Amino acid sequence: MGLLDLLTQETVGFACLPKAPSAWSLLGIPFDATTTYKPGTRFAPDAVRSASCNLEFYSILTELILEDEKVNDVGNLVLPPGDVKEALRIIEDAVRELRNLYSNNLPIFIGGEHLITYPVVKAFGKDIDTLVVFDAHLDLRDEYLNSRYNHATFLRRIVEELDLDIVHIGSRAYSKDELDYVKSTGLRVFNVLSIKNLDALGKEFENLGRTYISVDIDVVDPAYAPGVGNPEPLGMEPFTLLQVIRKIFESGNRIIGFDLVEVNPLVDVNDVTSALAGKIILEVMAIDKFLKKH
Amino acid sequence: MGLLDLLTQETVGFACLPKAPSAWSLLGIPFDATTTYKPGTRFAPDAVRSASCNLEFYSILTELILEDEKVNDVGNLVLPPGDVKEALRIIEDAVRELRNLYSNNLPIFIGGEHLITYPVVKAFGKDIDTLVVFDAHLDLRDEYLNSRYNHATFLRRIVEELDLDIVHIGSRAYSKDELDYVKSTGLRVFNVLSIKNLDALGKEFENLGRTYISVDIDVVDPAYAPGVGNPEPLGMEPFTLLQVIRKIFESGNRIIGFDLVEVNPLVDVNDVTSALAGKIILEVMAIDKFLKKH
Amino acid sequence: MGLLDLLTQETVGFACLPKAPSAWSLLGIPFDATTTYKPGTRFAPDAVRSASCNLEFYSILTELILEDEKVNDVGNLVLPPGDVKEALRIIEDAVRELRNLYSNNLPIFIGGEHLITYPVVKAFGKDIDTLVVFDAHLDLRDEYLNSRYNHATFLRRIVEELDLDIVHIGSRAYSKDELDYVKSTGLRVFNVLSIKNLDALGKEFENLGRTYISVDIDVVDPAYAPGVGNPEPLGMEPFTLLQVIRKIFESGNRIIGFDLVEVNPLVDVNDVTSALAGKIILEVMAIDKFLKKH
Amino acid sequence: MGLLDLLTQETVGFACLPKAPSAWSLLGIPFDATTTYKPGTRFAPDAVRSASCNLEFYSILTELILEDEKVNDVGNLVLPPGDVKEALRIIEDAVRELRNLYSNNLPIFIGGEHLITYPVVKAFGKDIDTLVVFDAHLDLRDEYLNSRYNHATFLRRIVEELDLDIVHIGSRAYSKDELDYVKSTGLRVFNVLSIKNLDALGKEFENLGRTYISVDIDVVDPAYAPGVGNPEPLGMEPFTLLQVIRKIFESGNRIIGFDLVEVNPLVDVNDVTSALAGKIILEVMAIDKFLKKH
Amino acid sequence: MGLLDLLTQETVGFACLPKAPSAWSLLGIPFDATTTYKPGTRFAPDAVRSASCNLEFYSILTELILEDEKVNDVGNLVLPPGDVKEALRIIEDAVRELRNLYSNNLPIFIGGEHLITYPVVKAFGKDIDTLVVFDAHLDLRDEYLNSRYNHATFLRRIVEELDLDIVHIGSRAYSKDELDYVKSTGLRVFNVLSIKNLDALGKEFENLGRTYISVDIDVVDPAYAPGVGNPEPLGMEPFTLLQVIRKIFESGNRIIGFDLVEVNPLVDVNDVTSALAGKIILEVMAIDKFLKKH
Amino acid sequence: MGLLDLLTQETVGFACLPKAPSAWSLLGIPFDATTTYKPGTRFAPDAVRSASCNLEFYSILTELILEDEKVNDVGNLVLPPGDVKEALRIIEDAVRELRNLYSNNLPIFIGGEHLITYPVVKAFGKDIDTLVVFDAHLDLRDEYLNSRYNHATFLRRIVEELDLDIVHIGSRAYSKDELDYVKSTGLRVFNVLSIKNLDALGKEFENLGRTYISVDIDVVDPAYAPGVGNPEPLGMEPFTLLQVIRKIFESGNRIIGFDLVEVNPLVDVNDVTSALAGKIILEVMAIDKFLKKH
Repeated sequence: MGLLDLLTQETVGFACLPKAPSAWSLLGIPFDATTTYKPGTRFAPDAVRSASCNLEFYSILTELILEDEKVNDVGNLVLPPGDVKEALRIIEDAVRELRNLYSNNLPIFIGGEHLITYPVVKAFGKDIDTLVVFDAHLDLRDEYLNSRYNHATFLRRIVEELDLDIVHIGSRAYSKDELDYVKSTGLRVFNVLSIKNLDALGKEFENLGRTYISVDIDVVDPAYAPGVGNPEPLGMEPFTLLQVIRKIFESGNRIIGFDLVEVNPLVDVNDVTSALAGKIILEVMAIDKFLKKH
Repeated sequence: MGLLDLLTQETVGFACLPKAPSAWSLLGIPFDATTTYKPGTRFAPDAVRSASCNLEFYSILTELILEDEKVNDVGNLVLPPGDVKEALRIIEDAVRELRNLYSNNLPIFIGGEHLITYPVVKAFGKDIDTLVVFDAHLDLRDEYLNSRYNHATFLRRIVEELDLDIVHIGSRAYSKDELDYVKSTGLRVFNVLSIKNLDALGKEFENLGRTYISVDIDVVDPAYAPGVGNPEPLGMEPFTLLQVIRKIFESGNRIIGFDLVEVNPLVDVNDVTSALAGKIILEVMAIDKFLKKH
Repeated sequence: MGLLDLLTQETVGFACLPKAPSAWSLLGIPFDATTTYKPGTRFAPDAVRSASCNLEFYSILTELILEDEKVNDVGNLVLPPGDVKEALRIIEDAVRELRNLYSNNLPIFIGGEHLITYPVVKAFGKDIDTLVVFDAHLDLRDEYLNSRYNHATFLRRIVEELDLDIVHIGSRAYSKDELDYVKSTGLRVFNVLSIKNLDALGKEFENLGRTYISVDIDVVDPAYAPGVGNPEPLGMEPFTLLQVIRKIFESGNRIIGFDLVEVNPLVDVNDVTSALAGKIILEVMAIDKFLKKH
Repeated sequence: MGLLDLLTQETVGFACLPKAPSAWSLLGIPFDATTTYKPGTRFAPDAVRSASCNLEFYSILTELILEDEKVNDVGNLVLPPGDVKEALRIIEDAVRELRNLYSNNLPIFIGGEHLITYPVVKAFGKDIDTLVVFDAHLDLRDEYLNSRYNHATFLRRIVEELDLDIVHIGSRAYSKDELDYVKSTGLRVFNVLSIKNLDALGKEFENLGRTYISVDIDVVDPAYAPGVGNPEPLGMEPFTLLQVIRKIFESGNRIIGFDLVEVNPLVDVNDVTSALAGKIILEVMAIDKFLKKH
Repeated sequence: MGLLDLLTQETVGFACLPKAPSAWSLLGIPFDATTTYKPGTRFAPDAVRSASCNLEFYSILTELILEDEKVNDVGNLVLPPGDVKEALRIIEDAVRELRNLYSNNLPIFIGGEHLITYPVVKAFGKDIDTLVVFDAHLDLRDEYLNSRYNHATFLRRIVEELDLDIVHIGSRAYSKDELDYVKSTGLRVFNVLSIKNLDALGKEFENLGRTYISVDIDVVDPAYAPGVGNPEPLGMEPFTLLQVIRKIFESGNRIIGFDLVEVNPLVDVNDVTSALAGKIILEVMAIDKFLKKH
Repeated sequence: MGLLDLLTQETVGFACLPKAPSAWSLLGIPFDATTTYKPGTRFAPDAVRSASCNLEFYSILTELILEDEKVNDVGNLVLPPGDVKEALRIIEDAVRELRNLYSNNLPIFIGGEHLITYPVVKAFGKDIDTLVVFDAHLDLRDEYLNSRYNHATFLRRIVEELDLDIVHIGSRAYSKDELDYVKSTGLRVFNVLSIKNLDALGKEFENLGRTYISVDIDVVDPAYAPGVGNPEPLGMEPFTLLQVIRKIFESGNRIIGFDLVEVNPLVDVNDVTSALAGKIILEVMAIDKFLKKH
């Protein structure tokens, strides 16, 4: 059974752009089965697509205008309720198939909860040199509430099971075990206070190689992104987040995948979190286009 | 590991009644991992407990006043995120242990989604002669979105795996397969239109034997219970529901367990659905007390 | 200092009708200082006025059309925050002054919590023969949380301090002490189940004499009136409430005052509770006009 | 320019049924430009489509199951913001084209505000013998706020400009001018109190000829349909509405068009009004199928 | 017919200040008939007035206290639903009359959508040398969805039809056509990134002459102003906006009119957007007073 | 009667930490009886406790991790509805008793409205040298709406009745009388604009002696704390607030009490204000621990 058999019926294309062959493919992964607080990120793929229809296509980072672009938006995965293992397998297979079908594309994934990054990254196999994670939390627990595969442990599983480097940015909420683990493993963690000198930070991002970027929207302050499962105060401002993302693109690395997770439309106000998520994706598309042109 | 090790820290007791040995035990089962539409029933046990604090303790069905009662409210189960199988096992074990510890009690369970009724009923083993289900839907699918154990299939699993009779009341939303299954198995289904002549209906409820009652709050019309995952129009009125429940108690059957599921506080208005759920539980306690006294 | 000195700046007139001499005066009493659950009824006077602007002026009970009427809407009282005793005194004085100024009018009061009925009725002195209360609760506690003057005790104070008869309609939530008190005093309580045979009920309403009617909107089912402090299930339907009110008017009694209390706009949905409250007031005005004409 | 050029990009099909040739065509008309109170009905076509995905396909009126059906859902019209005249012209043209393209279908329209019924009905020309309107209001004003074409005047324009009979059901909110107009024109108005004896009412519906039915969802009580621009208390119950609709179908009339208007998702709770609207459309489809089969 | 005939019945005065002759007149323009996304700005004039009642009257920019001031708040215009052309004409006439009646005042307008600025500015005729617009968007489209007069085209119409200079500040969302138009016409656009060096920016504001300032509240970041039709991320901070407004006042220009548009109370949280809008107006009044005194 | 007799039944412990002897005691004071705008702060103690359960225990200011800590959370006071005087007396007594029972603890109080700080501080008697208040408003009115003891006057009463110094930080909303009073008394007020140079500000905080800190959450900008009674624009950022609090701790002063007031969960979005309040309390606990260790 192929990827297309797993998808839901057609939805509005991302930002109401035409669904057609393009430099970017987009897949919605409406998975939130391991959430431990407020669930609802399953509604994010469609909410982000819709809210983006009301954004203009100008990129403030690159001064490009994307309004004549298309997006290879293949829709949302249909996942079996109550079978996390199988859901993760389907996600992994679908990502592998997506990459095979559209090998020249930058694939973009909209979650769902952060656990989806685990099967997505697994599907990339050895193609990822560095995984850059933006997140208020480390998600490095060994287990959580007697479960080893969930939103709070996903990065630990990736570190243990996959051979790639980690750069973690924007965090401000740790458990003791996570901090100990960071120290023992030497993971590179740039907490939210360390993001002041962007030029210095940019240096740190050189030579990451083939890079996958994962943005948990709760890295942003709840003022800007209230619609999340776990609002954690003292977060980044959106423009800073975009500047750091641009630094990563510009530092000579090759970005081979991107995801944006943890938007929860059920607890948002006036869809502002979905709109911000859509804006981040549009800017990522613009940076990608800008750099490939140059 | 015993039941008490599985429970969350103390919460407010049901309806702010003292938590103490009593004729009723109460267990919250905050499980909603297989929900396919709006999740959030995990918050129902605490929301129903709290909303009930603002109800008076007078029972309109029995004219009893419960304000001097206690409830053996043991708290909520802690369940592993992302491991449905294990969660169902824990629920089943906990119910078994609860029944052992408090064998003289009427156990009352607050969901969570309707799938919890599956492990709960399993834990009763051969002690249940008849399972009475109030529900807008039949939940009799063989599988749903490639999954066999979820909120849409739970009753099918019970029919297949357990040896008990089913009485299904208040439904109005079926798939073709479900209707075919009902016909082929002879399950007794009283749809919402059939609940007019309560006396005639009462006759049908004689000789159910040891009976377990499960109320999916969406059996009630969304006007009265808007806070549910899947609001289905044309439902019962709350007072009719209570009258039918009383009929079942009064028809000489022995009620040995009760659950109330599918309240979703995340999408409610002013907690009216939680308050209604609390009122139903209070009336069940009152009927139980009234009949045991007589 | 006169009544007019106590009023807030002008607000929209009730139902956007002109503020002018008329058969009805209207006073908003935005007092909710003794609320024990969700506060917010202070916003009801303005919310009911505004929501009523979107109702038509046709009375379904009388077939009158009120669109050319005026309402002597004098505005809202300004009450001292944190001084309940003084607030009650101001309410009482203002009502007395209102009655003096507009002695031919039917005065209508919009609460605020139900405690306001205590000073309002006091201001009527010996002019009231019977107080008819519609309420889900009895509000007959002797004290509540160590306080003797609050929304849960107001009717007890009236019974104790004033010389008038009580008729209580629509209740379904009692404490044991309240029931005992009802029995010992012989108060006439028609609970929600007793309102089936309107003709029989009508007989009970004969010879009430000069009558004041107080409607706590929570007498209505939360399906129709979700925006209340304490939603209590199993309430009356709005049309039944109106029919009972008409019976009271028609049974030869003289209605000399009316209040509508406990609408809470902070927890309503789409202002439906405010709109219902406005509709009840409009129908009361229509019945009053209809009977005076005949 | 043809109809298809006026449509928005694809949306989810009604109730997630496949979009394909069928006995019913469906067109969304997201027009709310003349609303005078809370706007937002423009979002109804998509909200009703989506909310219906969570309904089952069983029809309680006919016992048919529609799950294998398709709907010729052609999408939503794109209308020029700020140009009501042109928007009405586009609606009329599109309906005419839709009827030409799918002349054997029962066309179903989802509004938008009630004014859309004016151009829709105009497009049917002389094909309509009787227009049946369910509505809390008469919408028979000659003008409203100095405007002659808006949600409050649409039926007056139809009466004046088109040659068809009117049957108006469920109303309870009139202005004096409207009542005078009803009397002078002899329009048949069955107000909400007159809908008690369904059999007697059924008689009134004989010989309507080719009939178009328009349902303003505010004909239903706000308890069941809170998400409307103008919630008007004392409305019909949904099941009664469906029974009356069935009566009209069964009384030997030929139903040639149907619309459902005035759902306002911006002010709804948990999409219950959208779900109810979807259920009404599903039952209309089922009755239509049932009668054509017999 | 004069201006006063067009106004709604009295509302609360702005910020609950007395309505009386003063240095400022205020007119509410509840027009949102061309909105293409979430409508509701029609409620802004009253919502901003009310929310401002809870602000103190201290101006942080000028250290003035306005609590003894009055505002010549003339109320809201009544506009014909569904007749945009006529509505624009009424707005223009009313503004002209307002300026005639109160020629010494600084007139302040509260929208409504941004299209209102078109007739307002037209009414000023040749009195405006420079129009300063704060807006996330350019609103410079030639047409939008086949309409030439709407919220997305209003500034284009002004540029084409009126003889004045434009200064546009805070934008970050453009279409390609808009950018091309800006380049071809040489409009002065200071996008959101250019507002860093306030002193440098101040220089640009010299010699604007008689200046009208229009603030679309969506120029502010959605964190501070979530209640808008189209939340556009990456906006200005409120204090920066105020500083820029002060620069314009202080740079020797004469401010002859001010409007604040696009607040949408229907999708706000806790009226924070209305409160912010009220604060901006209060500071504008304070700056105006401060400069006139000196 | 002792303190424990005044408390509500057990609630979840602060941040779900164990309730046990510790360096900090915590008391909830659910008092909002003098609120003049949107009430609801009575729900803050429980909402802050719960929302904090989803925060991690890492302190970004101190790099401490508090996850193994306990909190001596004694619950909430039960206060008599409608008797402000008595409520204030109970609060004062309870605080006195709490300090006696746990004399080595840093007591932390969660309001409730700001008036609670008055009896709390009174209970400290002469133990406080300096009261540091963070607040958007001065709360220094002599009386407000004819009442002398309410949220708008509490600090005036403290200044008049108690012998301590005041440092007021973050304000931006004054009445004229308040400003005059500040000038005449020489109270030290650092308004929101003065908090730029933290080092300079730190100097001002030397030699405060035994210090009590009171944080009205509305000192923070409504973007970060929308859930408050009176959202006042132009507030502090949360991280700045924490830095200033740390400065006060670090400047050689002894902090002997702390309160956080005015969170209003009834008008919040996704509990972000409660989460921020919980984070502030956690950081205060961390700073306290950090400094005591060193």
